[in-house]
Amino acid sequence: RLSVMEQENLSVVLHAQGDLRLEHRPVPEPGPNDVVLQMHSVGICGSDVHYWQHGRIGDFVLTKPMVLGHEASGRVVKVGSAVRHLDVGDRVAIEPGVPRDMDEFVKGGRYNLSPTIFFCATPPDNGNLCRYYKHNANYCYKLPDNVTFEEGALIEPLSVGIHACRRAGVTLGSTVLICGAGPIGLVCLLVAKAMGASQAVITDLTAERLTMAKDLGADFQLTVKKSDRPQDLAKSVEDMLGGQPHITIECTGAESCIQTAIYATRSGGVVVLVGLGADMASVPLINAAVREVDIRGVFRYCNTWPMAISMLASGSVNIKPLVTHRFPLEQAVQAFETTRQCLGIKVMLKCDQSDQNP
Amino acid sequence: RLSVMEQENLSVVLHAQGDLRLEHRPVPEPGPNDVVLQMHSVGICGSDVHYWQHGRIGDFVLTKPMVLGHEASGRVVKVGSAVRHLDVGDRVAIEPGVPRDMDEFVKGGRYNLSPTIFFCATPPDNGNLCRYYKHNANYCYKLPDNVTFEEGALIEPLSVGIHACRRAGVTLGSTVLICGAGPIGLVCLLVAKAMGASQAVITDLTAERLTMAKDLGADFQLTVKKSDRPQDLAKSVEDMLGGQPHITIECTGAESCIQTAIYATRSGGVVVLVGLGADMASVPLINAAVREVDIRGVFRYCNTWPMAISMLASGSVNIKPLVTHRFPLEQAVQAFETTRQCLGIKVMLKCDQSDQNP
Amino acid sequence: RLSVMEQENLSVVLHAQGDLRLEHRPVPEPGPNDVVLQMHSVGICGSDVHYWQHGRIGDFVLTKPMVLGHEASGRVVKVGSAVRHLDVGDRVAIEPGVPRDMDEFVKGGRYNLSPTIFFCATPPDNGNLCRYYKHNANYCYKLPDNVTFEEGALIEPLSVGIHACRRAGVTLGSTVLICGAGPIGLVCLLVAKAMGASQAVITDLTAERLTMAKDLGADFQLTVKKSDRPQDLAKSVEDMLGGQPHITIECTGAESCIQTAIYATRSGGVVVLVGLGADMASVPLINAAVREVDIRGVFRYCNTWPMAISMLASGSVNIKPLVTHRFPLEQAVQAFETTRQCLGIKVMLKCDQSDQNP
Amino acid sequence: RLSVMEQENLSVVLHAQGDLRLEHRPVPEPGPNDVVLQMHSVGICGSDVHYWQHGRIGDFVLTKPMVLGHEASGRVVKVGSAVRHLDVGDRVAIEPGVPRDMDEFVKGGRYNLSPTIFFCATPPDNGNLCRYYKHNANYCYKLPDNVTFEEGALIEPLSVGIHACRRAGVTLGSTVLICGAGPIGLVCLLVAKAMGASQAVITDLTAERLTMAKDLGADFQLTVKKSDRPQDLAKSVEDMLGGQPHITIECTGAESCIQTAIYATRSGGVVVLVGLGADMASVPLINAAVREVDIRGVFRYCNTWPMAISMLASGSVNIKPLVTHRFPLEQAVQAFETTRQCLGIKVMLKCDQSDQNP
Ligand SMILES: NC(=O)c1ccc[n+]([C@@H]2O[C@H](COP(=O)([O-])OP(=O)(O)OC[C@H]3O[C@@H](n4cnc5c(N)ncnc54)[C@H](O)[C@@H]3O)[C@@H](O)[C@H]2O)c1
Ligand SMILES: NC(=O)c1ccc[n+]([C@@H]2O[C@H](COP(=O)([O-])OP(=O)(O)OC[C@H]3O[C@@H](n4cnc5c(N)ncnc54)[C@H](O)[C@@H]3O)[C@@H](O)[C@H]2O)c1
Ligand SMILES: NC(=O)c1ccc[n+]([C@@H]2O[C@H](COP(=O)([O-])OP(=O)(O)OC[C@H]3O[C@@H](n4cnc5c(N)ncnc54)[C@H](O)[C@@H]3O)[C@@H](O)[C@H]2O)c1
Ligand SMILES: NC(=O)c1ccc[n+]([C@@H]2O[C@H](COP(=O)([O-])OP(=O)(O)OC[C@H]3O[C@@H](n4cnc5c(N)ncnc54)[C@H](O)[C@@H]3O)[C@@H](O)[C@H]2O)c1
Ligand SMILES: [Zn+2]
Ligand SMILES: [Zn+2]
Ligand SMILES: [Zn+2]
Ligand SMILES: [Zn+2]
Repeated sequence: RLSVMEQENLSVVLHAQGDLRLEHRPVPEPGPNDVVLQMHSVGICGSDVHYWQHGRIGDFVLTKPMVLGHEASGRVVKVGSAVRHLDVGDRVAIEPGVPRDMDEFVKGGRYNLSPTIFFCATPPDNGNLCRYYKHNANYCYKLPDNVTFEEGALIEPLSVGIHACRRAGVTLGSTVLICGAGPIGLVCLLVAKAMGASQAVITDLTAERLTMAKDLGADFQLTVKKSDRPQDLAKSVEDMLGGQPHITIECTGAESCIQTAIYATRSGGVVVLVGLGADMASVPLINAAVREVDIRGVFRYCNTWPMAISMLASGSVNIKPLVTHRFPLEQAVQAFETTRQCLGIKVMLKCDQSDQNP
Repeated sequence: RLSVMEQENLSVVLHAQGDLRLEHRPVPEPGPNDVVLQMHSVGICGSDVHYWQHGRIGDFVLTKPMVLGHEASGRVVKVGSAVRHLDVGDRVAIEPGVPRDMDEFVKGGRYNLSPTIFFCATPPDNGNLCRYYKHNANYCYKLPDNVTFEEGALIEPLSVGIHACRRAGVTLGSTVLICGAGPIGLVCLLVAKAMGASQAVITDLTAERLTMAKDLGADFQLTVKKSDRPQDLAKSVEDMLGGQPHITIECTGAESCIQTAIYATRSGGVVVLVGLGADMASVPLINAAVREVDIRGVFRYCNTWPMAISMLASGSVNIKPLVTHRFPLEQAVQAFETTRQCLGIKVMLKCDQSDQNP
Repeated sequence: RLSVMEQENLSVVLHAQGDLRLEHRPVPEPGPNDVVLQMHSVGICGSDVHYWQHGRIGDFVLTKPMVLGHEASGRVVKVGSAVRHLDVGDRVAIEPGVPRDMDEFVKGGRYNLSPTIFFCATPPDNGNLCRYYKHNANYCYKLPDNVTFEEGALIEPLSVGIHACRRAGVTLGSTVLICGAGPIGLVCLLVAKAMGASQAVITDLTAERLTMAKDLGADFQLTVKKSDRPQDLAKSVEDMLGGQPHITIECTGAESCIQTAIYATRSGGVVVLVGLGADMASVPLINAAVREVDIRGVFRYCNTWPMAISMLASGSVNIKPLVTHRFPLEQAVQAFETTRQCLGIKVMLKCDQSDQNP
Repeated sequence: RLSVMEQENLSVVLHAQGDLRLEHRPVPEPGPNDVVLQMHSVGICGSDVHYWQHGRIGDFVLTKPMVLGHEASGRVVKVGSAVRHLDVGDRVAIEPGVPRDMDEFVKGGRYNLSPTIFFCATPPDNGNLCRYYKHNANYCYKLPDNVTFEEGALIEPLSVGIHACRRAGVTLGSTVLICGAGPIGLVCLLVAKAMGASQAVITDLTAERLTMAKDLGADFQLTVKKSDRPQDLAKSVEDMLGGQPHITIECTGAESCIQTAIYATRSGGVVVLVGLGADMASVPLINAAVREVDIRGVFRYCNTWPMAISMLASGSVNIKPLVTHRFPLEQAVQAFETTRQCLGIKVMLKCDQSDQNP
């Protein structure tokens, strides 16, 4: 293995908007608190495609070449001198956000809000779509034998769903509306059901995605047309459930969906904003305020990997069906193109030449 | 139907310690906010048996004849003048506790703590083990067609489990230790899993109850001997789970189990006390305090029926296997004797002569 | 006293938009759960003036004559047959909202959200700006001797501040921005400081109100011009405090203030919306979402009177300076005109001819 | 200054039970994330005296010489290469607990529960009762000009009070019982009042401490005799307050006080255990459980320094009166003897020869 490592580290590098390249980079050496991983499976995220297509997301602007990828798992091949909980050979899932400073957010347990956090594939920080990748060992979590590498990689999007449902306060008997049946809407659905939601309605513009949602456990699907009025959609949801949902999780970023979310949610309930849309949104804020419908955002996640692994190991959630396409790392461009065209749900890149299994 | 109502209201009445009688009582008339129910299924609870055997539980002392029974469901036969949400013919589950005063606890949403609450089969308040029973309509909850009367009756013990798991903060990925596999331990198990607990260990003195627990979804069973040391049991639990449980739900009332609960629980976790034992208990409080393991009691429940019905209707929890014995109302004494001998889990009395189905 | 009661019950009645009349109404008789009060002090609220000027607030439309007033205190003169905790002669503060149905909101302790709640001076429910008024005794709270009638009446607006600060999670060391220094902004200020806020900035368009705010304990005052940019105001607040506030309480309803509130608040913090503005608002929701700044509305209050009385009795908050004008009930029109012109802060109507003291 | 630093670092070193020595130790050099401080004021804690008298506290056993002291403030004299937020000359308060591992507790924001945490003057970790001391810069907090060094040192015990009151959920209008008027009971009192508690009862065996408590704002003082029955004391507290307290904070560790705490607290309330007593305690757990009185421990604190500084800077709490004795570092033995004899409340050691001011 080491001889290979010395030879090459094929990486998916975004040089500029629209300029995605496969190129060799040096194999990294671990610092005292790091491990070096041989990457196994890396999912492609909407944000990876967005950087490729637009060169930026909000204030994060690509100014120099950056390795993409942040939904990842791999095997430990080198261990830093101060690392005690991992050994060479361990299979791990990677949490892509690693706080750099012990600031008030990190001390308080909400490290995702730390303004100086390192985050894979967010400029200027490199991601892990490559053969060998170095990461802080404290943010690499050992996978039990009955959890696959792909499940390990999927913990990243799943974590968004966990964080969203946790912020929403989903609990036994909650009724939930989920707007959008993309990968993020679907993980929110899976998590909401696993937390005891009794009924979930999910919406989307396209019927295919709703079919997948149904297979994953949605109780009701609502196909939305762009011309539908938010109040009418809210009414349809209420009729389906026999009452307004306690919780709405918005996973599209569309202004009209945020409006629907507010109108639809029961007084005293919660709207969680996961989808990222335009800077300004015109919304019926007073309707939410006088019914004490709380509006809570989600920025990535924190403290989710251990519970996600525990859930996957116990089989209480099945995320495997989310993977609809697989490509070897060498075919990264085709893989990105597949995601760009919204084909299927999750595309996996297989980085280990000797093991392309899930 | 009405002609029958005028004739008889066979009721299970406790006259004094050990003196349980089947006798006819008048059929009640509803007040403006009441409904009269034709009772269908009523489960026997440990507390019913305890009043029969001892004539008291703590400060609640039987001083005059009292109808037993509080785990119940039935069909509406008369509706009070001010009742709007129920009609004759509706199938309902009964919440046995009805607050009498709009005190600070009721206003604050914790009505189970109201010192003047009416509670079925708690002296001096009559229960509902009879043919016809009057109850405040606000505490009768309509059952959907796909929820059986017996499931409706089981919402009462299930509610103890819901309230316990809610107070415990069980959530996705929680690991849970449950002490005692009686009816209450088992409902806590079912609810904890439904709320996303990834692993649950359950303990009991008897192997039969642990077998039932395994069938209901327990990941690990621990057969306890009375001579086992609490610290050793705590260690066994940690070994089984690969780490200390986040939460322990104590459902035996045994002092040694409370001790085990404290030693076993992870720092920052929660011990919930459901079991009711001796007035004074000798426990390692400092161990709990310096590890910030919170100790929270449970007194019945509040705000559980709607979510329980929603859960049962959606099929997310299956409580039917808890019913191991059924008797017609006329055989109430044999039924009580069965529970007294700890045979099976839950004994149901069937109060409707024309429908003895689940 | 009874002879007076039989003679007259002078009341401030709104007959239609702009048509405010002083007229005699019958003296009410208590139902079993009511008390009849001889009114003492009633504050005029912006909403009273709004009904007078516009005949409606949102969906609440005046369709028949309605007595105004909901910030009130008085003395018990008759006691309903079922009332146990109050006696003739007791001085009480009145909570104007009384739930009618035992619905999910009331059972859960958030009775302010109950859609069928009775609320003084909200069409079609009559208020208490009159000589004699009947109210549910459970929502009348006995005042200790060292709390004046006017303090009792001020508990109503104070409750909005308590509920807002409680929903905001104000605690020791919180830094707080309050937008608007009207009566509501000022009570939020008082409560925030009493809950341990270390620093409070308050904004307003007018310097007079900020002077009052300073006297009441605001650490910083920011005079706002309508042309100021929200981001710039947010920056000014940050500079004053040496960091972004943990919490912002919006008490103007102005769209630009909601925008300022979001920009100004620290990541992971809370914006509470108290002010009621236009149905739709254009706001930087994404900015809030990705920094996990929660947006929580406030609809009146619940469970505040006991703690407010306890606070006033202990002297931990001084609300007396809020009263800037007093008029006898007979001069209600002048009093309303004073509030309409935004003169001073709180105008009190004195309803008891024999005692016009605070 | 540097020449002095090279010469000596007078330190208070505990060599073995009863063997306290003043001796010279090397002046430390900072690591990249550290600062070296010239110590100014260090308070003596009961635990320092306990190590001196008994050589151990629970499982923490002195096995080699250890510098005492953990309630401290000083001035930065050297700054590690990676430190950005502190400069030479800055006056800082020291948080004595510094997590070593990024474990689940630290990631979750409850770093006080991390089993591998460094903590000043807890074997084998050295404290800061010396002239020059090295500490992780992330746990040194800059003091504003209007906060004295002694206030800075007192933030350590104050933090216990903050953490206790926060865990208790003290808020506006809370009524609070505090058992024990030692330094810890007194800081709990100060914090509870600052968080809006309307009434506080405090108990102690000695009248002197209760006098101090009264001066600091206690509304009621209860002098306890060891023979008093817990139920009777609970009744006295209820009579004083006109109702049971919402919250009890136990600051003695005495078994009888824990019993009193449980009996005294209102249903649905909270008992916080701060005092550390015997391993096993015999307590009326069932009484707590069926009234849902939660029992929560306190282990030191986390995330308190910034809010404490903000509070002290704003003058919302006055902790200066707690300091009753001062000694120069050279007289450490007399100082320890003063604390051992329970004379006064807090004894300060003044470590800076050129500035012995508060
Ligand atoms: N807050 C965070 O931390 C975080 C993390 C990951 C993703 N996101 C955001 O979450 C959103 C969803 O991510 P994804 O990967 O699932 O994206 P996606 O684009 O694959 O899925 C969005 C889905 O919403 C549907 N949709 C669009 N408009 C709709 C409408 N009006 N009504 C109903 N459905 C509609 C689309 O058909 C699509 O299926 C994106 O905005 C993404 O930026 C946020
Ligand atoms: N707090 C409440 O509101 C509430 C409500 C209902 C029941 N309860 C209490 O909950 C408890 C359980 O109720 P139940 O109906 O299941 O009772 P149960 O007697 O049927 O079950 C208790 C189980 O605990 C087991 N057990 C006893 N000692 C044990 C030990 N040392 N280790 C392990 N297991 C042990 C027994 O074998 C039995 O199976 C009772 O104490 C009851 O009074 C409390
Ligand atoms: N949510 C509730 O339950 C509830 C209850 C009571 C009042 N309210 C609402 O709270 C708001 C305040 O009530 P009030 O009685 O204090 O009203 P008010 O009109 O007396 O006070 C509002 C203050 O805001 C100031 N203001 C307006 N625009 C501003 C701006 N751009 N920047 C800074 N300050 C600005 C005004 O000068 C005025 O002093 C109203 O909207 C009212 O409807 C809501
Ligand atoms: N949990 C933590 O993190 C933490 C931190 C600091 C201190 N502590 C503990 O807090 C407790 C208090 O600390 P302190 O420094 O104030 O101690 P202290 O000994 O100075 O004060 C305790 C006070 O309690 C009084 N007392 C004793 N028995 C009593 C009784 N039966 N009734 C009423 N009062 C009684 C004493 O007279 C004394 O004034 C100690 O047990 C200490 O170990 C815990
Ligand atoms: Zn992603
Ligand atoms: Zn029962
Ligand atoms: Zn008002
Ligand atoms: Zn200390």
